[in-house]
Amino acid sequence: MSKILVFGHQNPDSDAIGSSVAYAYLKRELGVDAEAVALGTPNEETTFALNYFGVEAPRVVESAKAEGADQVILTDHNEFQQSISDIRDVEVIEVVDHHRVANFETANPLYMRLEPVGSASSIVYRLYKENNVVIPKEMAGLLLSGLISDTLLLKSPTTHSTDPAVAADLAEIAGVNLEEYGLALLKAGTNLATKSAEELIDIDAKTFELNGNQVRVAQVNTVDINEVLERQAEIEAAITAANTANGYSDFVLMITDILNSNSEILALGSNIDKVEAAFNFKLENNHAFLAGAVSRKKQVVPQLTESFNA
Amino acid sequence: MSKILVFGHQNPDSDAIGSSVAYAYLKRELGVDAEAVALGTPNEETTFALNYFGVEAPRVVESAKAEGADQVILTDHNEFQQSISDIRDVEVIEVVDHHRVANFETANPLYMRLEPVGSASSIVYRLYKENNVVIPKEMAGLLLSGLISDTLLLKSPTTHSTDPAVAADLAEIAGVNLEEYGLALLKAGTNLATKSAEELIDIDAKTFELNGNQVRVAQVNTVDINEVLERQAEIEAAITAANTANGYSDFVLMITDILNSNSEILALGSNIDKVEAAFNFKLENNHAFLAGAVSRKKQVVPQLTESFNA
Repeated sequence: MSKILVFGHQNPDSDAIGSSVAYAYLKRELGVDAEAVALGTPNEETTFALNYFGVEAPRVVESAKAEGADQVILTDHNEFQQSISDIRDVEVIEVVDHHRVANFETANPLYMRLEPVGSASSIVYRLYKENNVVIPKEMAGLLLSGLISDTLLLKSPTTHSTDPAVAADLAEIAGVNLEEYGLALLKAGTNLATKSAEELIDIDAKTFELNGNQVRVAQVNTVDINEVLERQAEIEAAITAANTANGYSDFVLMITDILNSNSEILALGSNIDKVEAAFNFKLENNHAFLAGAVSRKKQVVPQLTESFNA
Repeated sequence: MSKILVFGHQNPDSDAIGSSVAYAYLKRELGVDAEAVALGTPNEETTFALNYFGVEAPRVVESAKAEGADQVILTDHNEFQQSISDIRDVEVIEVVDHHRVANFETANPLYMRLEPVGSASSIVYRLYKENNVVIPKEMAGLLLSGLISDTLLLKSPTTHSTDPAVAADLAEIAGVNLEEYGLALLKAGTNLATKSAEELIDIDAKTFELNGNQVRVAQVNTVDINEVLERQAEIEAAITAANTANGYSDFVLMITDILNSNSEILALGSNIDKVEAAFNFKLENNHAFLAGAVSRKKQVVPQLTESFNA
C-alpha cells in the first residue's frame, strides 16, 4: 500500500500544520505509513512554533498523485476547494476537522471525526488519549499552538468548554507557560510590516462558495488595526487584482485586533450589499468596524452564507 | 431550547431505527432533550426486534419544523435526499453514520462521527462506552439488531474487524444467543409473500444522485431468489411505475440470498449499459446473478458511481 498523505488546508495556519503533523505521528504510532505534508509554507506564527519546539516544517506538495499517494487524510478542513489540487482523484480515508461541512463527498465510507471545538488540534489531542498513545513534548507544543492560534488564546467564541483543559494539559506536556507562550506565538504572527500587500491578503485566506459566488475571506492578526489601514490603498489594489485573477466575486478581509478582540472589515467586490446586510453595517471608504468579532468561522462565514442565500 | 429530533434514513431498516432510538436514549442520559422519531414505519424485521425487546416503534414524522424542531441529529445516513423532507430548513447538529458522504452540507461546525464499520449501531455502542453510560438491555437488543441486519449476521464484507466483539458484547447485555437471535431476526425480514410488488421494491430502497441521474437502489432479503423472480412481471410493473412517478432514471433491485450470500440484480431504466458496465455482466430478461454480493454500500453503489461517472 502506498504512503498516506496527511495535510491541512491551503494557506496553512498553525492549526492546519499542528494537527496534520501530530496526527501523522499518531497514525505512524498505530502502524500506518503516514506522512504529514503541507499545501503551502508555514506563516510566521507557525514558523515560530516549529522553531520553538525544534520540528522541521512539513514539505510542501502540490499534488497527491504526483507523490504516488492514492489515499489522503485531511485535517482542519473538508471543503475540496481548500484542499490539494487533485483531491477529487484520490480517496479521502479520514477527516479530522472542526469546520462546517460543504463541498465534500466521497465514494466510500470513511472515518470522519468532526467536533465543534476550538481547533482540529483539540480533536487530535483526544485521539491520542483514546488510542492510549503518549503525546511527545514537541507534538504537544504543535497541538497547543494550533489551539492557541485558532482560539486567540482561548478568547474567541469558537473556544469550546472542553478546550481550556486541553490547553492546560498540552502546555504542561510541552513544558511552557500557557499565557506567556500563547502571547509570544500570536505576536509572532502580527508582524505584517515585512509583508507585501499581496502576501498580507493571502496569509490566512479561504474561498467559500456562497450561492454560486466565489467569496474570499481572509484574516490578518494585528496589535494595531490603524497600522494596517495605513496601507489601505495598496491592500485594495492587491484585492482587486486577486478578485480579477481568481474569479472571486468578493473579497472580505478581517483585520483582527488580538489584544482587544475586535475586527475591522475591509470588503471589495460585486455583492457589497450582501456583505453589509450580513453584518448590518455600512462600509465607509470600503471598511467598517465589527465589535467583538475575531472568528471567521463563527462570526463571519455563517453571516455571509445566510446573507448570500437570502 | 426546543426538542432535538433524532432519526435514521427514509425507509428505515433495523440499523436506522436501532441507532436512532439508542442514540436518543444516550443523549437524554447526557441531559439533552432528544426524541427518536422515524421517517417511515418499521419493516417486518425491525418490528420483530422491537417486539422481542418490548420497545415501542418511534412515531413517524414527515417534517421537523412541523414538530417544532430547529435542530436534528442524523443516524445511519447523511445524504439529504435520504433524510427528512425539510432537512435544509433545520440545523444538523450531529451525524452518527457509516456511509459515504455526499449531498450533505451545513452552515455551522457540528459533531460528526463517521466510521467505516458494519453499522451505525456499532458506533452508537462505542459512544455509550466513551461516555460511560450503561447500555440498557433493550437498547443493546436494538443496537445488536441493527448490526446483525446491516452485516447479515457478520457475513457481509461491510463487517469491520471490530464488529464481532461489539456483537458479542451486545448479545450478552441483551441476553440472547447471537446466532439464534440473528437468524430469527433476518428470517423475519424475508417474508415477502404478504407484500405487494409496490411494497416489496420499497422495503429498503435509497436514491443516489449519480452524475445527475436519480438512481434508486433497493434490496430485499430472501432465502429463495427464485421465489422472488416468480413475481418478476408485477415487480417490473411496479418499478416502471416508480421510475415514472419519482423521476428515477434507473431502478436497481438487489434480491439477496441471506443463506448463501449472493444476489440477483434486476434493473430497469435509461442507463442499463452503465449498470451492466458497473458489474461487468449482461442482463438477460432484465436480471443477472452477482455472486458473493450482499452489500449495497460496498458491492453495488461504489461500482454504479464509478460507472455512471465514467
